[in-house]
Amino acid sequence: MSRLVTLLTDYGTLDSYVAEVKAAVLASAPQAQLVDISHDVPPGDVRAGQYLLARTWHRFPAGTVHLVIVDPGVGTARRPLAGSGGGHLFVGPDNGLFAGLPAESQWVVITASPGASATFHGRDVFAPAAARLAAGADLHRLGSPTTAPTGGALPVPRWDGAGWVGEVIYVDRFGTLVTNLPASAVEPGVRIVAADRDVGPLLRTFGDVAPGHLVAFDGSGGTIEIAVRNGNAARLLGIGVGATVRA
Amino acid sequence: MSRLVTLLTDYGTLDSYVAEVKAAVLASAPQAQLVDISHDVPPGDVRAGQYLLARTWHRFPAGTVHLVIVDPGVGTARRPLAGSGGGHLFVGPDNGLFAGLPAESQWVVITASPGASATFHGRDVFAPAAARLAAGADLHRLGSPTTAPTGGALPVPRWDGAGWVGEVIYVDRFGTLVTNLPASAVEPGVRIVAADRDVGPLLRTFGDVAPGHLVAFDGSGGTIEIAVRNGNAARLLGIGVGATVRA
Amino acid sequence: MSRLVTLLTDYGTLDSYVAEVKAAVLASAPQAQLVDISHDVPPGDVRAGQYLLARTWHRFPAGTVHLVIVDPGVGTARRPLAGSGGGHLFVGPDNGLFAGLPAESQWVVITASPGASATFHGRDVFAPAAARLAAGADLHRLGSPTTAPTGGALPVPRWDGAGWVGEVIYVDRFGTLVTNLPASAVEPGVRIVAADRDVGPLLRTFGDVAPGHLVAFDGSGGTIEIAVRNGNAARLLGIGVGATVRA
Repeated sequence: MSRLVTLLTDYGTLDSYVAEVKAAVLASAPQAQLVDISHDVPPGDVRAGQYLLARTWHRFPAGTVHLVIVDPGVGTARRPLAGSGGGHLFVGPDNGLFAGLPAESQWVVITASPGASATFHGRDVFAPAAARLAAGADLHRLGSPTTAPTGGALPVPRWDGAGWVGEVIYVDRFGTLVTNLPASAVEPGVRIVAADRDVGPLLRTFGDVAPGHLVAFDGSGGTIEIAVRNGNAARLLGIGVGATVRA
Repeated sequence: MSRLVTLLTDYGTLDSYVAEVKAAVLASAPQAQLVDISHDVPPGDVRAGQYLLARTWHRFPAGTVHLVIVDPGVGTARRPLAGSGGGHLFVGPDNGLFAGLPAESQWVVITASPGASATFHGRDVFAPAAARLAAGADLHRLGSPTTAPTGGALPVPRWDGAGWVGEVIYVDRFGTLVTNLPASAVEPGVRIVAADRDVGPLLRTFGDVAPGHLVAFDGSGGTIEIAVRNGNAARLLGIGVGATVRA
Repeated sequence: MSRLVTLLTDYGTLDSYVAEVKAAVLASAPQAQLVDISHDVPPGDVRAGQYLLARTWHRFPAGTVHLVIVDPGVGTARRPLAGSGGGHLFVGPDNGLFAGLPAESQWVVITASPGASATFHGRDVFAPAAARLAAGADLHRLGSPTTAPTGGALPVPRWDGAGWVGEVIYVDRFGTLVTNLPASAVEPGVRIVAADRDVGPLLRTFGDVAPGHLVAFDGSGGTIEIAVRNGNAARLLGIGVGATVRA
């Protein structure tokens, strides 16, 4: 059996941490096929990890194991989890990363081996668990059944009588503001407003405005995004995650 | 059938874009073996993408699929291309990336699926095409035959009667100036001049000068390179891509 | 035969150098499974490369080939080495990277092919050697037997009568100071002193102090580490590799 194992961490690529995690997976599941999602999650930014996981996991083939380690509480009481849901498998700390996964998902608290370090559960607790799943072990062999992961799902927009009120949920490296407003909810011609600024109606792509201009469009993640063509919308508008966007 | 698929993009590694492209390849070609060339092409820098592709594609085993996504014109009219040439396969936008590939190459305009986003052709148009090639599909099943890619090949040096006149075509992260002057064209003892500065004759390697000194040598890409031992030639000389170099 | 090949270099990920090395491995060993350790070793920092290799190689499955290219002396007389030890295989320049590997290891000087460039031995000398090992060639087919790699092992702490005197051997991207003091050597209650500052006794994890506070703990590499919870110990204490730490 040879499963895909994706890795999403805040370990960066300067040090040996990612390699030690990969070695721990390959030591028990030498046939696993490893795919990096990102190791550049801002350190400890669980919300960004949650967003990146939510955007990607379902695009991989069914049966993929997703190893997610953004773990500012390593060594404290948060539960080490493994779960299955939506035909995929998930391993990581219970700190909000897994909030919003399919409701019918099942979870166990991972039984750590006695030799695990207190500070590197990615290598010593989560990677071995992911390896066992990648090698075909049943989820319930990894630990005791437990309740669903804690933490809130990504915020959803509300209707305030005059229009939809949403917010920025991610800023990518180009400074594009990803909102939680589904483009399908917006009537044609409705104008998008962010940071008290009229961004204009939804266009098809940022090629529809001149360079340097703001544009709102139906982004590749299924929600409205606000960008500056050949520029940086986060910087131009001076806003980031959590900022209100109206439509 | 299990082909190599290389990836060369300007997506960076902070966000989920590269992972979404990889997921789209693996969804249709689960046996594909993915190899990153780079995801750190400066955003929209087609010329750098063209150079990096030209330097690398022929070094991979025959039959490799090269997925190249540096696509500042995504959503505009530039053709989405797939091609075969030199025993390799290529997928990406027609914006100059593929200029200079073997003359006998064949190309098709990729027929995009109706559900493709307007802003993320890497995931929705190019990755599925690369996956089909990786899974063994014939190039002509992907779309309609079309003419060769547009754009000029990388610039070539000229002889002006007194010597060769070339230019810098790439600057690497060490500040080494990669020129388009083949070392084989330069007579022994001829001095290399860049930014009106005499760099000296061609030496064998940067170990042949003292630390901090300029040196011209026959670079690993087959052309003359100018470096500063333990230093940065681009910064020292204050020049970059396009600067004239004489030999 | 399909071996793991790990890669540890200072090439960075902006340019095509890593991809050219990978292509050279795959050209001769198409079934090799490539795993990056890091390509972000500070340019020419052999000591950091040595540390990262020492921390990781033994965690991979037996038979793994470790291709290590931090090679500021490329083109000079340092020996190009391939070796076997501890059930693993190693390829790279003889400049200290391999100091400290198992004493019973065996080494050969790699016979380079005549067409090798003078400046890119990673691609032209070391990658082909790693590929041959990955494809199952016997070490002694790669060159002539030679003596053990040069260079000192990582520094070890000493007992000065009053306590252990060690030093910082690595600083990770979080600013954590990794020392060479084994936690097991330190009596309970002994206080750790770095940069003339009392860091306190060994705690279990950085979760045991308040945010912003210094903490010493038994790190994941088996030695004492000094960190600032949610902060940067290297910056706070103003020290780095080589700084004295007492316990």
